[in-house]
Amino acid sequence: MSSRSVEVVIIGGGVAGLKAAQTLLTDPSGKLKSDDILVIEAQDHLGGRIFTDKNSSKLGYNYDLGAAWFHDSLSNIVLQDAVNDNDLDNFDRGKDTYYDDKDPKIFGEDGHVDLVDTKINRVYEELEKFIELYYYNDTDEPDLSLKDITDKFLQKYDSILTPTQKKYCKLLIRTYESWYGISWDVISGKYSMMDHHGRNLLNVKGYSFIIDKLAKQIPSSSILLNSQVKVIDRSNKDVPTKKVMIETTSGLKVYTNYVIVTVPQSILQLSDSSSYGITWKPPLPINIKDALSEIHFGCLGKVIFEFDSIWWDKNEDRFEILASEPDPTKSYSDPITSHPRPFDYPAYMVNFASVHKENLSKGSSLVILTQSPLTEYLESHSNEDAWRYYKPMLEKLVIPGKSITNPINTIKTSWTQNPYIRGSYSALHTHDDPSSLIIQLSGEFDNTGLIGNKNIRFAGEHTISDGAGCVHGAYSSGLREADWILNDIS
Amino acid sequence: MSSRSVEVVIIGGGVAGLKAAQTLLTDPSGKLKSDDILVIEAQDHLGGRIFTDKNSSKLGYNYDLGAAWFHDSLSNIVLQDAVNDNDLDNFDRGKDTYYDDKDPKIFGEDGHVDLVDTKINRVYEELEKFIELYYYNDTDEPDLSLKDITDKFLQKYDSILTPTQKKYCKLLIRTYESWYGISWDVISGKYSMMDHHGRNLLNVKGYSFIIDKLAKQIPSSSILLNSQVKVIDRSNKDVPTKKVMIETTSGLKVYTNYVIVTVPQSILQLSDSSSYGITWKPPLPINIKDALSEIHFGCLGKVIFEFDSIWWDKNEDRFEILASEPDPTKSYSDPITSHPRPFDYPAYMVNFASVHKENLSKGSSLVILTQSPLTEYLESHSNEDAWRYYKPMLEKLVIPGKSITNPINTIKTSWTQNPYIRGSYSALHTHDDPSSLIIQLSGEFDNTGLIGNKNIRFAGEHTISDGAGCVHGAYSSGLREADWILNDIS
Repeated sequence: MSSRSVEVVIIGGGVAGLKAAQTLLTDPSGKLKSDDILVIEAQDHLGGRIFTDKNSSKLGYNYDLGAAWFHDSLSNIVLQDAVNDNDLDNFDRGKDTYYDDKDPKIFGEDGHVDLVDTKINRVYEELEKFIELYYYNDTDEPDLSLKDITDKFLQKYDSILTPTQKKYCKLLIRTYESWYGISWDVISGKYSMMDHHGRNLLNVKGYSFIIDKLAKQIPSSSILLNSQVKVIDRSNKDVPTKKVMIETTSGLKVYTNYVIVTVPQSILQLSDSSSYGITWKPPLPINIKDALSEIHFGCLGKVIFEFDSIWWDKNEDRFEILASEPDPTKSYSDPITSHPRPFDYPAYMVNFASVHKENLSKGSSLVILTQSPLTEYLESHSNEDAWRYYKPMLEKLVIPGKSITNPINTIKTSWTQNPYIRGSYSALHTHDDPSSLIIQLSGEFDNTGLIGNKNIRFAGEHTISDGAGCVHGAYSSGLREADWILNDIS
Repeated sequence: MSSRSVEVVIIGGGVAGLKAAQTLLTDPSGKLKSDDILVIEAQDHLGGRIFTDKNSSKLGYNYDLGAAWFHDSLSNIVLQDAVNDNDLDNFDRGKDTYYDDKDPKIFGEDGHVDLVDTKINRVYEELEKFIELYYYNDTDEPDLSLKDITDKFLQKYDSILTPTQKKYCKLLIRTYESWYGISWDVISGKYSMMDHHGRNLLNVKGYSFIIDKLAKQIPSSSILLNSQVKVIDRSNKDVPTKKVMIETTSGLKVYTNYVIVTVPQSILQLSDSSSYGITWKPPLPINIKDALSEIHFGCLGKVIFEFDSIWWDKNEDRFEILASEPDPTKSYSDPITSHPRPFDYPAYMVNFASVHKENLSKGSSLVILTQSPLTEYLESHSNEDAWRYYKPMLEKLVIPGKSITNPINTIKTSWTQNPYIRGSYSALHTHDDPSSLIIQLSGEFDNTGLIGNKNIRFAGEHTISDGAGCVHGAYSSGLREADWILNDIS
């Protein structure tokens, strides 16, 4: 059995872990050298839920199968750092990003839906404000699913809304499924409304640029790939100078004084007995276990269809194909056991003909976001099954004089099939608590987390409020923990 | 010299004063009878800044020359009370209101501006969020005018905005002039962004319905019209059982124990020596005087043109005609001394062809909102001058196959000419403080207002946060003071 001794172990080589490692190594104090730090990554590559697929496209595109946008672009630290970097080989804001945020063109089962002339957009904004105020006025009001609170609004204002407005409000609210990666009948109404700090900026180059940039500053000797952590023993007595022992499934023991645990929330939520879970010695305290039970993990996925001709409007940034009116006898969040009916779940998609305006004669692609439980179904079934589900929906996009063609290539994500990831990011189901886990894991509150083991830190999108669920949140959390350790060492 | 003795004097017969009187008189406790209450109104009619003109139209329309919308319609107490009243003669939500909130159609000097295809709408939303965050992140940041903070945004994001986006952002932000009744170079950037609780609902019937409804519950013997209050003596010794003496310009002395002062902020801001100001004995304390100096009064006005044919798009709810690009050598907030150049100020208007869809063959009208200093100019000049200013701007609205026609009728407001009103409602200039006056006058904070004279109360749109500047704010403030007095009496 081999063993190593370091000063800091970072579990997980995603953006949080790499930002932490890079910060520790490049600190001007020089407190930590490369042999003091070890990043342990379970997969055969770095990046975690950032993955830019540069090889699968038949059209030469890069596809981000995970994170794809700079959200909150007015205050996004990853974007700011990339722009300030001035290394245009690495990132050129003009060339490498695109505001794909033109009002999405909406289609229903009956064709194009004009939100402006029917004032559905205004009613929809009012519905969003209603939801916000419903809980603002009384924070103790019991949580309702996004579906149920929408019904409440429609009942309350029944007499003043047109049938068309009522119908489409209900269908449009399901847009949130593509934000959270879960279906509207389980989305927490209480925490569903978001405040965005600026526009969403599509990362056209591919988010791996940030992984590459961080990795370049970490010597390969400080990174261990293909190594799954099985045990974290924070009462280690083997090596007197090191407080913690980390053991991988291959038996490697790493002794260390600091640990930053950046594995996904979904991994923390696994039991000890699971093959991919972490055994904590002693077990995680009840405060952390409780917090982990008060939050869910979403399953946002993608299905990308490439076509050799463009039969949809190349000038639109995004399309949204609405679901059909909900069947009251059906539970949309239940696992899908037989081929789903098209229009059971809405489809929100980015039009790559607008993102990449050059060489359109060769064709282009549509990048569709998928939500749970559709994601799990599609990721575990064939490309043909995906096309079978989406074809009748995509037919709504066909412009006059054109016909739908079969894709020349289909690319699907496999996040839900990946045992080290198990989905997308934190998602609040009805009755979940958005702050419990952050309070326990952010290290910013007294008497929380691993009380008595402040040397064991947590980072990742699930440990931070500003940028929760986003690349910039994960990145900031890595920075936060590196700063804490640097400060603690001195 | 005549005199009267009552228990409560209400100065001002606008919605705040009438709601206070009605609440006092209809309280189930029966503590106050009609001879206990006197509403003193300077004008020859009730309503204050609510005035529905039912006589001037040649097309049979009612025009609200003052307040016209139910703002914050999700939580608007006036709307709720009207709906709950069930007296459909008085108010019928279906018939008497109209959501005139379809996305406004925008025209510039060069014609129609499409905000969607150019994504100007998205950039504009981002500008609004930028302004909000600018002060959210640092509340001590010095205030900038809406014009200057817009320039800051455009400088900061210069490299990523298109010339079209930059141009129109700057012109579109002037929409706020029609909210505040002042020009964008003096609007407080810090307090410019608003959070609306629901859509804006146009009161088609005319807001006087609420004045009529309240007045019906107040005996005419409790209302004194044409009576301007000149003196409020809160150290009265003439009548031992009454704490306060109120004197009108005609010499009437009214002795009372409680006073609710609902005169507009603009009247409170007049000096004692002004013919229309109130002499306070002893003078107003410095805390109130200071607060009055930290806020301005806007001048939102209206110009209504009636036409015997419709040469604009009858299906649009609202038009906005943008100003031309600002002349940097010009101060737009300075009083206008010679006929203004068309396009110096943007014009925001309601299309009555959409509000009243019946009998369009007889023609229809455009209701234009005006801002200071244009309001003062237009209100003090002729109808012909108003048409001369707007005609070149309205020409942009002409649809193919039609030509602009001269109005058959012009109706203008005269709020700035009315010495009892002097404008529209509270408005925050750069460096103003939005809360000082509310803190001093709302009666809700200790050691504020007329310390030692809690029996003298204030109500009106300038004394309340929720619904500030609105009918529902004024109405709530009247209710608030009536409740306070009822409670104090017991």
